[in-house]
Amino acid sequence: MKYDLLRNIIKDTERIIFGEEIDKKYLTDGLNLDYGEADVLVFVENGEEISNIIKFANENLIPITPRGAGTCLTGATIPNKKGIVLDLSKMNNILELDEENFNITVEPGVLLQDVQVYVEERGLFYPPDPGEKASTIGGNISTNAGGMRAVKYGVTRDYVRELEIVTGNGETITVGSKTIKNSSGLDLKDLVVGSEGTLGIITKATLKLIPKPKNTVNILISFEKLEDAIKSVSKIIKLNANPTAIEFMERNIVENSEKYLNLKLPSNIGNAYLILTFDGEEKEIILNYTNAKEAAINSGALDFKVLNENEAIDTWKIRGALASSVMEFNEQLPIDIVVPINKTSEFVEFTNKSGDKHDLQVIYFGHAGDGNTHVSIIRNGMEKVNWKKKSYDLAYELYIKSHELNGLPSGEHGIGLSKKEFFKNVTGEKELRYMKGLKAVFDKNNILNEGKVYC
Amino acid sequence: MKYDLLRNIIKDTERIIFGEEIDKKYLTDGLNLDYGEADVLVFVENGEEISNIIKFANENLIPITPRGAGTCLTGATIPNKKGIVLDLSKMNNILELDEENFNITVEPGVLLQDVQVYVEERGLFYPPDPGEKASTIGGNISTNAGGMRAVKYGVTRDYVRELEIVTGNGETITVGSKTIKNSSGLDLKDLVVGSEGTLGIITKATLKLIPKPKNTVNILISFEKLEDAIKSVSKIIKLNANPTAIEFMERNIVENSEKYLNLKLPSNIGNAYLILTFDGEEKEIILNYTNAKEAAINSGALDFKVLNENEAIDTWKIRGALASSVMEFNEQLPIDIVVPINKTSEFVEFTNKSGDKHDLQVIYFGHAGDGNTHVSIIRNGMEKVNWKKKSYDLAYELYIKSHELNGLPSGEHGIGLSKKEFFKNVTGEKELRYMKGLKAVFDKNNILNEGKVYC
Repeated sequence: MKYDLLRNIIKDTERIIFGEEIDKKYLTDGLNLDYGEADVLVFVENGEEISNIIKFANENLIPITPRGAGTCLTGATIPNKKGIVLDLSKMNNILELDEENFNITVEPGVLLQDVQVYVEERGLFYPPDPGEKASTIGGNISTNAGGMRAVKYGVTRDYVRELEIVTGNGETITVGSKTIKNSSGLDLKDLVVGSEGTLGIITKATLKLIPKPKNTVNILISFEKLEDAIKSVSKIIKLNANPTAIEFMERNIVENSEKYLNLKLPSNIGNAYLILTFDGEEKEIILNYTNAKEAAINSGALDFKVLNENEAIDTWKIRGALASSVMEFNEQLPIDIVVPINKTSEFVEFTNKSGDKHDLQVIYFGHAGDGNTHVSIIRNGMEKVNWKKKSYDLAYELYIKSHELNGLPSGEHGIGLSKKEFFKNVTGEKELRYMKGLKAVFDKNNILNEGKVYC
Repeated sequence: MKYDLLRNIIKDTERIIFGEEIDKKYLTDGLNLDYGEADVLVFVENGEEISNIIKFANENLIPITPRGAGTCLTGATIPNKKGIVLDLSKMNNILELDEENFNITVEPGVLLQDVQVYVEERGLFYPPDPGEKASTIGGNISTNAGGMRAVKYGVTRDYVRELEIVTGNGETITVGSKTIKNSSGLDLKDLVVGSEGTLGIITKATLKLIPKPKNTVNILISFEKLEDAIKSVSKIIKLNANPTAIEFMERNIVENSEKYLNLKLPSNIGNAYLILTFDGEEKEIILNYTNAKEAAINSGALDFKVLNENEAIDTWKIRGALASSVMEFNEQLPIDIVVPINKTSEFVEFTNKSGDKHDLQVIYFGHAGDGNTHVSIIRNGMEKVNWKKKSYDLAYELYIKSHELNGLPSGEHGIGLSKKEFFKNVTGEKELRYMKGLKAVFDKNNILNEGKVYC
């Protein structure tokens, strides 16, 4: 049998699982909506094993689907071409903390939450903060994950200094550097960040850290309507108030979350809210949120509430559960379109009308500071095939609209399998051809995650 | 004659100059040390002309050397293979300012200083601040130029949102996006940034702006020795003091500059100095520099001087003239090695000893906040061939040393022609092969800047 030789690479029999024996959870993503098929699931422990497996796969033209914690929302971890599922979750060691240079080196299977805790215990800080804390660093890098703190600190890309990868050709290369500046040759590192496992498998990552901010203050601002809330965002940014996060949500969506958690938002005024976070020195924070208050009031804010610790916890719990409160009894199609920040209102309004037109329940909330809106199209008991068809049609309209607004199909989740068609539709034929050309350099036999993103 | 068809592309005869008629300044870089040869110099005015010239060059296998203001220090603008010199300096229009999304779109030949003035007059700020303000934005992007403000704000790469380029194959493509976040397909944009004209010619660039900081304060800190100054840098960063710039320089080098400018540094205590800049709200600045002061004093600072406006101007003039004060009557080989910040002292000490060993005058100063040290090996009246040989040998030692320290040959100038050998020496064979593979996708006939950087 063609997979027998894998036993020479992975001696430990418990780490190779064949066909029917594979737990279904390794054939899907974080949505558990669609499942692929695989011939074999391999739990790898080091870069050498990965390189040998990729060489084996090249010799036998076997597709490989890499995965970390499998929390992705786009089908990127679904084995769509059978072959090998390569699980990196056992490569979860923190290898080195370099406090003097503010670098940490980890294996790809380390969870985001473990890195965050590890560095914060030592007075340091890893700013990227995607919603799913049980995702792996390898996955975060592969999707260029964003999250709440992107307004002030940027996204995962901005915190990746150096990567060791095994390319689709089976070669181990190092990209990027441990230095802060780098003008030395082509930037292979940023090509790998966000490439969703189509170019290579990350085997080691050096991440940039910063000193841990001393204090954090959260603020809840209420508005009569979402448009006013969004308008105030540009003003807040222009005043240099430097918030860490600016999230928006609407009352009708908040209510689902309140019921689900049996909690109350610390404000029941108005129909739209902004949650702002500030971090840094106490005096600096007060200065900044005083500026933000002025901007918010000028945009028609009804209330500006500096939250105490418990109120802040409740507010973020409610924000965190906006999607899951609806998911509990429902399936959803998650969309994470990004548009220029001043187009957010227009996009949200369009989403609202489109949901009505297609008679589908749609909830939306998101990162107002960077134009990244999360839209969930809810199944709501609808017959599955019908829901899939209808939600696809609605999603298609949203992707076209975002493209008209100079937006993109994904701000932080990636394209994976489920958005591939939309992505190809709004991306130029030439640009797609260059992406495929680059893949051929890294993965000449199309072994890695073939058929996803741009492939 | 094979260039005749160029007349069909560029109708304006004044914009095509042949052979002997070409002013020598278009055959060199900012150092005016080495000169290449060109068959024709073309001043282009738009992307269509560029695309047609590149297609013509592909049909006739003619090398192209692109250039902006020609201020580069690595020979990247020297036509090393004859053929066409493509000058972009006439494409110098500011195309669009989008204040709501903090974006500005410019042509590649716009000067950095013109962008800075334009946006600052409108309450906005373009943070990258390379020393050479008369460089073009296209050149800044092509070298991923760094500069003084990188400690707080990052480098050019961090402020490039979207680029329109004509690839070496003559195709016009758009890379990156006008949005803040982007997880949509391969990151072609960052591959182009820092590629030194080897992949494509930038025809349009959308840059990220931020609100203009309200205040700026400069500080001069004196130390007995450089080692203490460098040690204090990590502490200042760890205290979250958030300086915009941290520059280091030594007394013996400062003295050249003082004489040259007939100015005095506002401190004559000690042998090593840090210049710190802070920007933002007044209270925030005071808070931050009070933290920095504590860190500096703990590292043995002899003096910590908050500079008034005139003192700040003089200090930055002296810092700015460190290289040119020696260049006036001398040629120099400039090096901009970058090492992890905690290796800066070790690298500088090694540089010092190497200069003595090779009996060459070496001056160094640099960006202490990011480990980027500028070393100038000075000709000092030495016979040219001998100086070239000796300075090459010394540079070679410095590049090897920086590689041992996990550093890189260039932090901000790029590799160009003059550092190509060193770069190839310290870069893995496989990594170089991947870079060349990527070039082949963008420039199948090796038309653009062939023989430079990694080619």
